[in-house]
Amino acid sequence: MRTPLTELLGINHPIVGFNRSPGVVAAVTNAGGIGVLAASMYTPAELDAQLTWIEEQVGGRPYGVDLLVPEKFAPGDPDDLIASLRAQIPAEHLAFVRDLLAKYDIPPAPGAVLHDEILAAFNPAGAAELLDVAFQHRISLVANALGTPPPDLVARGKAAGVVVAALVGQAKHAQRQIEAGVDLLIAQGTEAGGHTGTIATMVLTPEIVDLAGDRPVLAAGGIATGRQMAAALALGAAGVWCGSVWLSSAEDIANQAIKQKFLSATSNDTLRSPTRTGKPARQLRSAWHDEWAATGSPGPLPMPLQPMLVDEAWQRIDAAAEAGHPGGVALESFFVGQVVGSFQNIRPAGDITREMAADCERTIRALAGGLGPT
Amino acid sequence: MRTPLTELLGINHPIVGFNRSPGVVAAVTNAGGIGVLAASMYTPAELDAQLTWIEEQVGGRPYGVDLLVPEKFAPGDPDDLIASLRAQIPAEHLAFVRDLLAKYDIPPAPGAVLHDEILAAFNPAGAAELLDVAFQHRISLVANALGTPPPDLVARGKAAGVVVAALVGQAKHAQRQIEAGVDLLIAQGTEAGGHTGTIATMVLTPEIVDLAGDRPVLAAGGIATGRQMAAALALGAAGVWCGSVWLSSAEDIANQAIKQKFLSATSNDTLRSPTRTGKPARQLRSAWHDEWAATGSPGPLPMPLQPMLVDEAWQRIDAAAEAGHPGGVALESFFVGQVVGSFQNIRPAGDITREMAADCERTIRALAGGLGPT
Repeated sequence: MRTPLTELLGINHPIVGFNRSPGVVAAVTNAGGIGVLAASMYTPAELDAQLTWIEEQVGGRPYGVDLLVPEKFAPGDPDDLIASLRAQIPAEHLAFVRDLLAKYDIPPAPGAVLHDEILAAFNPAGAAELLDVAFQHRISLVANALGTPPPDLVARGKAAGVVVAALVGQAKHAQRQIEAGVDLLIAQGTEAGGHTGTIATMVLTPEIVDLAGDRPVLAAGGIATGRQMAAALALGAAGVWCGSVWLSSAEDIANQAIKQKFLSATSNDTLRSPTRTGKPARQLRSAWHDEWAATGSPGPLPMPLQPMLVDEAWQRIDAAAEAGHPGGVALESFFVGQVVGSFQNIRPAGDITREMAADCERTIRALAGGLGPT
Repeated sequence: MRTPLTELLGINHPIVGFNRSPGVVAAVTNAGGIGVLAASMYTPAELDAQLTWIEEQVGGRPYGVDLLVPEKFAPGDPDDLIASLRAQIPAEHLAFVRDLLAKYDIPPAPGAVLHDEILAAFNPAGAAELLDVAFQHRISLVANALGTPPPDLVARGKAAGVVVAALVGQAKHAQRQIEAGVDLLIAQGTEAGGHTGTIATMVLTPEIVDLAGDRPVLAAGGIATGRQMAAALALGAAGVWCGSVWLSSAEDIANQAIKQKFLSATSNDTLRSPTRTGKPARQLRSAWHDEWAATGSPGPLPMPLQPMLVDEAWQRIDAAAEAGHPGGVALESFFVGQVVGSFQNIRPAGDITREMAADCERTIRALAGGLGPT
């Protein structure tokens, strides 16, 4: 199948595979799509190692990276960033998280490593460090998941021949991205996993396509099968940006406890909540969200204070859930879109890619076959 | 175009036009789709007159009716229904609405006629009276917008050769409808106007299609153009159930004040709120919703107490808005989906129907043209 996306990136299938697992990224690229690594939870040194590994796997085929560069975030003292941010977390919030873990009897996780360094860098300066690493590698695409790109990103992308992409959830965000000069827009509907707005893919995609002029637009949110991919193309998208579907892939690094919860979830089991990152993000609904919604909850803090507040708690919950601890299983959650209801089994990411492309073609041919002759 | 829906109903375009305006219903039917009258805000006598008028316009072509039969509602004393329901409205709520109207300086509406008789009948017994009227006419389809159909509806439909349809927002609702024996399911995504759930059309449609077996499924929510219609067909739908798009039609009976607000709205200007009917329904966001969300709001009552509480207020707001009163314009709202952002102008409903069908075909042919030979 040829679309403006396959032409732009020299790929066979207009499918972007967004995931934090290097194995998924390599598998999607090697299956003829393009894998994009979610880089924001890596340190610069870790990112460097992951991109080196990916390049060893893909043998010259294209891949990309995705960063999280928020426009709004709690500022800290640049000379003492972590401590100055931690000092902004109220005692009430610390007590709430401590009591929540005690209520569910979640044991300590001896192996927990605080991600303060990574989380405190959820700002343009932190993103610039990751970008420096990314541009030292042979990336074909760099995407920003929140807000307009850092000022020099577009210029660096153009100089290096790297496609600069941005996720948008509203027309006004797309307008700002176009003015900033991005090459590729990703219209992300409310049904998507992770940070997302309130407008559905079915409405948002054609709206962004009409705004974007010659720029290709990808659809994101609600796309995990070839039928949904064909629907996205009908809406005018040049391809699809898929995130959640790879959580059902063998290469995904999520623990088995959350993968099992995903496999038994329905499309009604997600919600948008700011209680994990400080900004509304769609995730699997669990007892965690009930506790934050209950009377007595202090409510979430802004990014990056909220993720700093809950980072250790989530490592403990993940470890407890993985060990089959009932409290851990009750609280266990991760970012996922409404397509989680369609997960049937765990498959290789390359099979998912190829099957989606083949089913999309089959769907389009069947639709055309239902029309009379012109 | 031929689909299981066009075959089932003997129509040219797989487009259902749902609206409360008899003129829209007749125009969609006469353009080759099928118009469906929203019957729930009519008395039985009014419904009888409207259906007679529609039949005079459509000359034997098919049309349908849609009822609102809630499964959960505030029960009253059947011997004194209106008074027993009114007695359940707390003084705090009456005072809140009175103060809200005073704050926005909304004048009385001398012509306001309370709809207590209609609203108190938002229950299976009330729906049965409307159904009696509908079955005395030459209807081809009867749909229920909330919950499973009244026990004898399916049997009456089968006996009369009338297609029985139901709107669903979750797989478990669809399962109950299938067990009740409905002929046609309408998968209504969260982006739809009116009573709607939280799952997007892109995710819900294929889920319901897979459940429905041989029963045709229509997609609803987010569909106002031929591209969106083609996307719905790609998802496996046999056609589309459109509601909001007709609010931009010339035949729609909404006042000019709300039509102007619709024309200038974006897709980000709607919300799901129970403050009008007592159940979550998507509508244009206005100062009304800000007031109900503010501190001191008593929160909404259940159906039908909430619509009985706010009925006169909305007649006053509509009249004030129509007269250009600033408070009325600030509060003015109506049920509409996220597609409101795509409204460009007011057109005849028949033109909308024909254009949607033609653009859908063009979209499918273009998609197929982008594939190589088989």
